[in-house]
Amino acid sequence: MSSILISGGIVITMDPDRRIIKNGGVFVQNDEISEVGKASEIRNTAELKIKAEGMIVLPGLVDIHVHLAQALIRGCADDASLIDWLQKYVWPLQGNFDLEDGKTSAELCMLEMIKSGTTTFLESNLSARYGFDGIAESLDASGMRGVLSRTVMGLPSYGGQKGIMHPGMIEDPETCLHEVEAHHKRWNGKANGRISVWYGARSLGGCTPELYRRISEGAKKLDTGVTMHLGEVQEDVQFAKREYGKKPVEFMNDAGLVRKKVVFAHGVWFTEDEWQILAKKGASVAHCPCSNMKLASGIARVPEMIRAGVNVGLGCDGGPSNNCYDLIREMKWASLLQKVRLLDPLTMKAHTVLEMATVNGANALGMQDEIGSIETGKKADLILLSLKHPHLTPIYNPVSHLAYSAEGSDVETVIVNGKIIMENRQVKTLDEKKILQQAEYRGFRLLERTGISISPNGLES
Amino acid sequence: MSSILISGGIVITMDPDRRIIKNGGVFVQNDEISEVGKASEIRNTAELKIKAEGMIVLPGLVDIHVHLAQALIRGCADDASLIDWLQKYVWPLQGNFDLEDGKTSAELCMLEMIKSGTTTFLESNLSARYGFDGIAESLDASGMRGVLSRTVMGLPSYGGQKGIMHPGMIEDPETCLHEVEAHHKRWNGKANGRISVWYGARSLGGCTPELYRRISEGAKKLDTGVTMHLGEVQEDVQFAKREYGKKPVEFMNDAGLVRKKVVFAHGVWFTEDEWQILAKKGASVAHCPCSNMKLASGIARVPEMIRAGVNVGLGCDGGPSNNCYDLIREMKWASLLQKVRLLDPLTMKAHTVLEMATVNGANALGMQDEIGSIETGKKADLILLSLKHPHLTPIYNPVSHLAYSAEGSDVETVIVNGKIIMENRQVKTLDEKKILQQAEYRGFRLLERTGISISPNGLES
Repeated sequence: MSSILISGGIVITMDPDRRIIKNGGVFVQNDEISEVGKASEIRNTAELKIKAEGMIVLPGLVDIHVHLAQALIRGCADDASLIDWLQKYVWPLQGNFDLEDGKTSAELCMLEMIKSGTTTFLESNLSARYGFDGIAESLDASGMRGVLSRTVMGLPSYGGQKGIMHPGMIEDPETCLHEVEAHHKRWNGKANGRISVWYGARSLGGCTPELYRRISEGAKKLDTGVTMHLGEVQEDVQFAKREYGKKPVEFMNDAGLVRKKVVFAHGVWFTEDEWQILAKKGASVAHCPCSNMKLASGIARVPEMIRAGVNVGLGCDGGPSNNCYDLIREMKWASLLQKVRLLDPLTMKAHTVLEMATVNGANALGMQDEIGSIETGKKADLILLSLKHPHLTPIYNPVSHLAYSAEGSDVETVIVNGKIIMENRQVKTLDEKKILQQAEYRGFRLLERTGISISPNGLES
Repeated sequence: MSSILISGGIVITMDPDRRIIKNGGVFVQNDEISEVGKASEIRNTAELKIKAEGMIVLPGLVDIHVHLAQALIRGCADDASLIDWLQKYVWPLQGNFDLEDGKTSAELCMLEMIKSGTTTFLESNLSARYGFDGIAESLDASGMRGVLSRTVMGLPSYGGQKGIMHPGMIEDPETCLHEVEAHHKRWNGKANGRISVWYGARSLGGCTPELYRRISEGAKKLDTGVTMHLGEVQEDVQFAKREYGKKPVEFMNDAGLVRKKVVFAHGVWFTEDEWQILAKKGASVAHCPCSNMKLASGIARVPEMIRAGVNVGLGCDGGPSNNCYDLIREMKWASLLQKVRLLDPLTMKAHTVLEMATVNGANALGMQDEIGSIETGKKADLILLSLKHPHLTPIYNPVSHLAYSAEGSDVETVIVNGKIIMENRQVKTLDEKKILQQAEYRGFRLLERTGISISPNGLES
């Protein structure tokens, strides 16, 4: 039995009433939240007491589109067109990963997520060469909650373009399907329920229609989820129209792949009728504003999607597309991008983006009964964020500060499943110094092996 | 005589060759940079030696559009339309400032700028009630380099709308003009040259054409600069057309106010022929991407402006419009906003936004021979930024990290005029703890006095 009392902070519950409790208290019993309220009204008998004066206490953030294996290639492919970005840099580099690179990249990424307040993530598309088992072991060790999706691909093409993928990235569909099942059996529900295994379907052009249907069936059989990139770029829409005579979501719907626990990353070019399908079927969209802006993919019509009833969460995407994994900073991007697109300062309010990063993320993963808010009976996934900084002073409206002024490094303490995994910015579960050294060493080796050199002034391939 | 040797870091010089020196060294003699090069080639005789391994050494950043008096009202007016934002919140609050509020807000703002690597700023429009002398004293004490512009206004209107300004914000033009001269005499060039005093002309509708001409004459006589808001919102353009039959820059040009050491904040709605005038006359634009996005003002066509030869720097604007004063984070906004606007990932490269935050800012202030780059003979305004963080690992391209992944809190050490004003994130010149306490206390008193209450869920007036 272990118990923690967090008291004195501003508790932003994100519960159905969206209560914000000044001088609040949260009692954690084992891996669950057992009491939430005014600090004065919470029993004071915990084994460990955390004083949270001058802090925000928030549900751990949920990032629903992350590439663990891209942290190691952060800053490798800036200011490049998407096809160059993929073909010249991202794919060759990822195609040259060895298992230790995959593990190191994942640990680097998790370290960064923990240090900026993300407690749960959905990893999108793990290829064989990143080493699923090693990454799952690291996830276990990190103390985070995570969904690992294993890539399923059938065609070595991208958006209908053949011959552009690096050989190291190409896999056989039968092996993929088999491995998802094997990984699911080995890892799903492990680490006290912190690890889940999903299908990571490759984007349009990467699977046959038949393969999407088999993914759908497989996921139903295992009662698990599916994630894939969809509607990220205009070419995606053109491809679906040309090949299938349908819009991307219509096509996926016909393949049986629009339903709960399905997360489509990006959805930039989805249209109204596609939003209707998503809303009706309960599938979610991972909005990735920084990535969409940096790669110039376009601007997802998020307020309209939300109004249509679609569940939209947030994603940081990857090291070469963002280039960081910081959901605190991502919230501001999600808000301001829509305000300027619509020339409407009233749209995408602070609370909306905070919902995206918490409850909506939890919904997307089918974990709405476990995480995403601070409520009795939910898992104790909590973060404490210090307000004692010039950029967060004065404190009139803590939600405004979270959305518009905070940065990841304001997070002080991170608790997952009732266990403190970061305290005063010291990560307790992973060896930060060693991982940074490993990442630096392995990253440069990978570049050398791939034959890519980067001058301090930018790209030179 | 004092000397500092900074060695071992990645020195990003921003000199005309844009040299980036790995394992570089910078020798500071008194207030100037006396040597820059490979660490091994710099004399090793300094009184103080700073090891910069794992750090970027960068010229101090230059923010050319800051409202010091808005730090105290940070997060007070989110998700509101511009006219509500001004009329219901910003003006009444600022109109109720007392001198201590002004000083406290300025100190809070400077603290935040120092802690995120800004060493020089252009304050836009100080009203009488913020207390010019108190703020100038604080600037002196902070160790920063700053340009304080004193508001000059002649009409109590905004964009032609009368009767909407708070009485506390209204001043008499003769007093304004007289005070600029008096402040200039008292403060310009003081604090070892760190303080400058400029004219802060109110935006269109706030001055008569005659008053703009007098500002122009006054600034010429004092050999000083002028800043004002121009082309921030579409209404600005409509007003100029309606009242003067001209575009905003054309009108200002006819008033003699387009020239070097003139900084127009925002310039969102400037057009090609206006860019030509700005480029020809050497006036600058302060681009404020976060503010323009949050207030939904629009998107300035920055790459086109730069291509037309306009000098464009960066500004964080204010506490209710950004809501933070962090130029490191602002660089990413400046880049990604243009990439997505033009659907061109190649535009606004990492180097370009770093230029905006350094050399272009220095140019805008007429300080190109003193600051903005690390060169022999320039003032020793330097920042050290630690790369030893997960979000900045591996280090392939330090400029990419600055533009796309860093946050203000990565800045470790700040040197201005050869004096260390922050070391290991401890500000040495201002009392951080005391200022945060004062700001919290004064901010809530100000809200109460103004009759504005803010619920934790957002605005309630």
